[in-house]
Amino acid sequence: MLAIGIDPGTAITGYGVVEEAEDGSLTAVDYGSIETTADDSMPERLMQLYKQLKELINLHQPESGAVEKLFFARNVRTALTVGQARGVALLALAEAGVVLAEYTPNEVKQAVAGFGGADKSQVQKMVQALLGLEEIPQPDDAADALAVAICHLHSARIRSLGELSD
Amino acid sequence: MLAIGIDPGTAITGYGVVEEAEDGSLTAVDYGSIETTADDSMPERLMQLYKQLKELINLHQPESGAVEKLFFARNVRTALTVGQARGVALLALAEAGVVLAEYTPNEVKQAVAGFGGADKSQVQKMVQALLGLEEIPQPDDAADALAVAICHLHSARIRSLGELSD
Repeated sequence: MLAIGIDPGTAITGYGVVEEAEDGSLTAVDYGSIETTADDSMPERLMQLYKQLKELINLHQPESGAVEKLFFARNVRTALTVGQARGVALLALAEAGVVLAEYTPNEVKQAVAGFGGADKSQVQKMVQALLGLEEIPQPDDAADALAVAICHLHSARIRSLGELSD
Repeated sequence: MLAIGIDPGTAITGYGVVEEAEDGSLTAVDYGSIETTADDSMPERLMQLYKQLKELINLHQPESGAVEKLFFARNVRTALTVGQARGVALLALAEAGVVLAEYTPNEVKQAVAGFGGADKSQVQKMVQALLGLEEIPQPDDAADALAVAICHLHSARIRSLGELSD
């Protein structure tokens, strides 16, 4: 099972592609960030983000994808900008037929670090440990995206265990 | 000169295509709305919006496009949802090479109704009058999109007059 997690933004969008083996072990297949510069216009930046996401999805062909539910933002303006990047990311995933799930920040922390109150640094260290990486994934947006992907695989596994025991 | 105005939203996106003749007279070439239902998932709705906008742009081949600058929204959640639709709309326009401009709500009111404090109904009546339409364009989102297109053509005309007098 291959899942892509995405942490969308117009300046920087983090992504993380995680594979779950039969035994439940996780591997980071790819992670990183797509960055655009404020020198370009917003439509141009959204187009760059869209193209690069399409290439990533085409390269890895994940079966499912996950993004964080976003209810909070510093202000309306930030929400609008993040929304624009998020819309383009959801579009790229939908067009590739990638099934999408959304998780609250608390669900992600719970799944990765074991409790919803975990701080950013604890989550990052758990991402590193769960994926067997030598260092904490950089940038933060990539670590966040990997965390969402892990949360998604974890949830999918719990759902399938639930089906088995029915 | 052919311009498309867009008033983006996930439930309903208004559009208006306006042509300006040499003598400055305006004609509504096409207007209406793209609607999606909450029965479909957000990625599916964004994909429908994107596809239909692409078809519209391909059909009319506008040289330029305009959207309202959005600084205000009822709350962060609304801003996020509108942002998602807006991102997809900007992407569709950018991919078609349509040059995009943004105007504040006050600029639109000023250009269409002659003063920035005009109310919605005054703006709609002026849109009807300027385009020589028998009725006020429906739905409201289409009238809003036509108003943005008119504002854009008006601004472009003022800019070109400025160039002539330089």
